[in-house]
Amino acid sequence: MSTMLIIGAGVMGSALAATAVRAGRVEVLLAGSPLDDEIIAGLRHDGRHTDLDVELPSRLECLTDTELDADRIRSADVIVLGVSSPGVDWAIGRLRDAGAHPELLALVTKGLVPPDDETLPPSTYAERIPALLDDESVPLVGIGGPCIARELALELPTRVCLGARDRVSAGRFRDLVQTPFYSATLAEDITGLEACAALKNFLCIGVSAWLTRYRVGDEEARNPVAALYSQAVLEMALLADWIRRGASRSDVDATVVRESPDVAFDLPGLGDLHVTVGGGRNSRLGRHLGEGQCLRAVVSGPMRGITVEGVDTGRVLAEPLRAACGRGRLDPARLPLTLAILDAIEHDTPFDLDLDRLPG
Amino acid sequence: MSTMLIIGAGVMGSALAATAVRAGRVEVLLAGSPLDDEIIAGLRHDGRHTDLDVELPSRLECLTDTELDADRIRSADVIVLGVSSPGVDWAIGRLRDAGAHPELLALVTKGLVPPDDETLPPSTYAERIPALLDDESVPLVGIGGPCIARELALELPTRVCLGARDRVSAGRFRDLVQTPFYSATLAEDITGLEACAALKNFLCIGVSAWLTRYRVGDEEARNPVAALYSQAVLEMALLADWIRRGASRSDVDATVVRESPDVAFDLPGLGDLHVTVGGGRNSRLGRHLGEGQCLRAVVSGPMRGITVEGVDTGRVLAEPLRAACGRGRLDPARLPLTLAILDAIEHDTPFDLDLDRLPG
Repeated sequence: MSTMLIIGAGVMGSALAATAVRAGRVEVLLAGSPLDDEIIAGLRHDGRHTDLDVELPSRLECLTDTELDADRIRSADVIVLGVSSPGVDWAIGRLRDAGAHPELLALVTKGLVPPDDETLPPSTYAERIPALLDDESVPLVGIGGPCIARELALELPTRVCLGARDRVSAGRFRDLVQTPFYSATLAEDITGLEACAALKNFLCIGVSAWLTRYRVGDEEARNPVAALYSQAVLEMALLADWIRRGASRSDVDATVVRESPDVAFDLPGLGDLHVTVGGGRNSRLGRHLGEGQCLRAVVSGPMRGITVEGVDTGRVLAEPLRAACGRGRLDPARLPLTLAILDAIEHDTPFDLDLDRLPG
Repeated sequence: MSTMLIIGAGVMGSALAATAVRAGRVEVLLAGSPLDDEIIAGLRHDGRHTDLDVELPSRLECLTDTELDADRIRSADVIVLGVSSPGVDWAIGRLRDAGAHPELLALVTKGLVPPDDETLPPSTYAERIPALLDDESVPLVGIGGPCIARELALELPTRVCLGARDRVSAGRFRDLVQTPFYSATLAEDITGLEACAALKNFLCIGVSAWLTRYRVGDEEARNPVAALYSQAVLEMALLADWIRRGASRSDVDATVVRESPDVAFDLPGLGDLHVTVGGGRNSRLGRHLGEGQCLRAVVSGPMRGITVEGVDTGRVLAEPLRAACGRGRLDPARLPLTLAILDAIEHDTPFDLDLDRLPG
């Protein structure tokens, strides 16, 4: 039986580890980062993951970071990067130092990476990880789509999209993790998938602002949010396309795979945006902005100490996006939601987007 | 100033009438059907629409059906068909008898029309109305997108898509109704737009079933619904494409306009599905089915006497869809949600769809 090593015991890595154990086709090892000692201790104590608040299968083997030695890393057939984006350099360093050469490297980690050159768009971890690993040949698998970790850990039906440059790699990963409650479609557009995974957090902030801004009596109004959700999906498709063109170093869509339909219009895009607007930290920030609060007041007040990934994505997007608009690579008139969120993040001003800013 | 006549004083026709009055660029006349006398009486009494529970602008002129004479019909520059689908033949009969020749005929009415020949897909009112009117040249405008009538009447920001074979007609209608809280994009794919408007009611039934079927404690689980919502959008695109090909009497996509992006991935499709799953009669039926009840028990019990448009759409779809699957025009493996809803409607069996039926 082959071995899967998951690095990082956060909610998503741990829920995926539990799923792989339940699938029963691989030995699963969950290794905490140096920040996860308490989670690992909790799992050893009574099998419960403290952040998920769910009991995970007892067959899941757990290690603290200090217990994870180079032999265990090297002997893993499949490695899953389960850390959040600030932990990527550390995790990749661990793999490189141990001389890891997994057959597959799957990415739970999501985020955009600033470009080396401001005339380029940001890139995704699908481009960044091979460079960091100094191994361009490692088969990467991206995981996109609507998946709240706790629901997956509770075995609620969950459907994701696995992206890899070759479908064989994506299919091999699927074979290891698929269960009756966790299924996956396959895509070749891994860059588009990874871009959507980061962009949906960012765009969710603006859509969620209209949840609190417009009300009918005690209830959230639905027309405004549906309009902005629809606009968010269109902008996600445009931005993912821009990032995809950057990854292929091409202004035309020749060397990159385009799915039919575009991943933005499938599970990694509109599907993932659906759950993200439904709840979570990005949506919570957006709701505060919709009430007229500004970013700095929220993150130093009611959301103090809470990482909001969509804000990090916005900070990476801002400069290259404005440059691309200036150089005619992106049309700002088609990106009003994106620009309104960026304004609120960069200038700490109230989120300002009205219906008449949406394109006719 | 030109005149707009809205036939049918239901919630959507009336909300649109109020919006046109507020836009201030046209004289607006709201004419009730023979079933709307109480609504018209209420509007005359205190300006409130009894079903919308909203006060409409006093400048809105209201007539009962008996007060609407042929002269008023003939003198209308723009006519809006605001009746529900069972009222279409009656309303068109009124127009034909009066010798109406409006510059634009806009459709609030939504639904699918059974084909003459079971080898064809159903058609939409965009094809049916000109035939009924015996006037193939009348410029039709379809209205698609997320719009709860009461929210529009309350002036909540609402964004729709206006479809016409030529954008000029769609743009002319927009000029008459656009306000700061009601805006519209334009599309040429009127058949696709009309198909989505009907299909979203039907598909909503299945998506909503998973709202009640899967729970996390007291709350609705979000992973399953996002997965099925995403699947619903893909199936809507496939079905709309099939209906579009039928309208053009072609198996290839040559003579019909295709938007970029497809209307299914824009306001008329995913946007409208978003509000429809959020509430309303189709969603309510779906929630009952998700609890394990069967259609007949629901419509003779808790939803007695309530028209559920998605069921009517399903009944029109069923036979031609199964014929198209049998003849290889549609791939049943890509339509699991559609087929599961049809089964529940046709056979009065519990709604039966599991994650493993969704395509890999």
